Amino acid sequence: MLILTRKDIDQFYTMEDCIESVMEAFALSSSKKVKAPVRTKLTVEHVQGNALFMPGLVEEKGYLGAKIVSVFPQNSSKGKPVVNATIVMLDVETGEVKALIDGTYVTKMRTGAATGASIKLLARENVKIGVLFGTGGQSEKQLEAMIATRHFEEIRVVGRNFEKTLDFCEKMSLLIPEMKVKEDHKNVEITAYKDGNDAVAEADIIVLATTSTKGLFDGNLLKNGVHISGVGSYTKEMCEMDKTTVLTADKVYIDDRDSMLEEAGEFTQLIDQGIISEDFYTGEIGDLILGKVPGRENEDEITIFKSVGISAQDLVSAENIYRKAIELGIGQVIDFD
Amino acid sequence: MLILTRKDIDQFYTMEDCIESVMEAFALSSSKKVKAPVRTKLTVEHVQGNALFMPGLVEEKGYLGAKIVSVFPQNSSKGKPVVNATIVMLDVETGEVKALIDGTYVTKMRTGAATGASIKLLARENVKIGVLFGTGGQSEKQLEAMIATRHFEEIRVVGRNFEKTLDFCEKMSLLIPEMKVKEDHKNVEITAYKDGNDAVAEADIIVLATTSTKGLFDGNLLKNGVHISGVGSYTKEMCEMDKTTVLTADKVYIDDRDSMLEEAGEFTQLIDQGIISEDFYTGEIGDLILGKVPGRENEDEITIFKSVGISAQDLVSAENIYRKAIELGIGQVIDFD
Repeated sequence: MLILTRKDIDQFYTMEDCIESVMEAFALSSSKKVKAPVRTKLTVEHVQGNALFMPGLVEEKGYLGAKIVSVFPQNSSKGKPVVNATIVMLDVETGEVKALIDGTYVTKMRTGAATGASIKLLARENVKIGVLFGTGGQSEKQLEAMIATRHFEEIRVVGRNFEKTLDFCEKMSLLIPEMKVKEDHKNVEITAYKDGNDAVAEADIIVLATTSTKGLFDGNLLKNGVHISGVGSYTKEMCEMDKTTVLTADKVYIDDRDSMLEEAGEFTQLIDQGIISEDFYTGEIGDLILGKVPGRENEDEITIFKSVGISAQDLVSAENIYRKAIELGIGQVIDFD
Repeated sequence: MLILTRKDIDQFYTMEDCIESVMEAFALSSSKKVKAPVRTKLTVEHVQGNALFMPGLVEEKGYLGAKIVSVFPQNSSKGKPVVNATIVMLDVETGEVKALIDGTYVTKMRTGAATGASIKLLARENVKIGVLFGTGGQSEKQLEAMIATRHFEEIRVVGRNFEKTLDFCEKMSLLIPEMKVKEDHKNVEITAYKDGNDAVAEADIIVLATTSTKGLFDGNLLKNGVHISGVGSYTKEMCEMDKTTVLTADKVYIDDRDSMLEEAGEFTQLIDQGIISEDFYTGEIGDLILGKVPGRENEDEITIFKSVGISAQDLVSAENIYRKAIELGIGQVIDFD
């Protein structure tokens, strides 16, 4: 069995690689080639923590594994991450466990890559201003996905706490030179903004990575041609885009219809109010990749991609990481025999 | 995160320890203190393999984890084990993965320990002849559990293939001196029998560890006072005890009512035929441990324990292994940070 930590993965698996994995995952998901049973949840009452077990299989590709994710809110008061994940991969021919992979890191990568895929597929080619909402655990890889896919002059970061936002911007400015992205893309200014509305008015691309329960900016301020990627909200109570944003968009893409109807608050709240129907969206992003639904058709359209995250992203990313690690001889081998 | 292999576990965790864990598990299960959601199954069609994901939680004891088991029948033609298992344990306070344990080995130990627990609880103290049916993956630990709990003069082994049975007996005779059991218990003769009926007629304890679909011996041959532990069958099609054996027994114990009604063919077939009711049994073994149902009441009673295996056995054994390994500083630590 091979153990792969964040440091192992970082040696060879780039954001660009992960975007490819995630695009494959979205296409497989929309082709109904992913078996992903309902996830099992165990609640630890005394700390209000949830442990989730999410197995998945893509038989024709040889992908078989499970992600174990825990969300323990009280961890933050202990100085520990609230979300922890581990991915276990099995050999599809023998059922043997073949790899244990740092799922927390893969989750950040593949969530960044969802944004990256949507930018590649839906954003205009020439952009100047990006905006990133959120400075939490997912934000670093969201920023990397933005930089990996477009050359921005400026990326504005908006957080709830301005001190923390300044710290995040400083940390990112130091990290960017080390990122495995195109050299000219690294020439970008990372700036902290206090007010979301100030930040978005000139934005070409907006990325939402928060657990907000109300829209992060006024949709009336959006300029034509903007692309929005929302990856933060994942319950019916959460909502990162206001009604105007959703209704103004020319095209809306989602990761998975069933998951969207269960977990994407910005849409389900409007569906429940009868403002939009369950079929309001343009298509699943996988169907866009497969050429079954149209993408952006001109420079003026406003496009939205909303992802709640699907297990295929973990499965495909983890398998691709595993295969490349084997090829390169990276990681620690544990012998159980 | 701590990695624990079979060799690590063997350094400190004895069959006697595992019997204690399993008795705790049965008692917790019968007290309804175990949260074990329905296991999730993924079938890999082209090799007819099943991967099963079995999470479990005992909050008040701090046990949280999951066993991943795969059953890939075509492995045998590849010279690999058909059943493989891995156990992942989580910290119940933070949700972090704290250990990865060789689940194949723990499964063998805890299945042996189920037999061991039933012998401790239900068999007569003074015994001479034991019989073990089956020479497969589970049999070594079944034999160890017999030797750990009673002093036999002879244990007769019955397999489908006599050559293989002879090999098994020879291998076991060599292993017994190394077993961590009472010294005087090691003074036992292991003999190969061709015919199950010849073997059982004088037996004081009979252990069944096969996947047979019909009774392994004629129940009319049983002598008074015999204890039978059946741990092999685990589907409605499988059946290790004939009708006479089930109907002759004075007391019948099971591991878990719901599991028995789904998976114990020797009983469900008789229930389906209207020969016995769903309430035919004396009690769950956990309720026997808790003093809620009676045990053996004299030297003449015939007792049966039938176990299909419950996830609490894995959970409690794995946690006890983990805690002792931490205490002793055994195992390999992997740093994911």
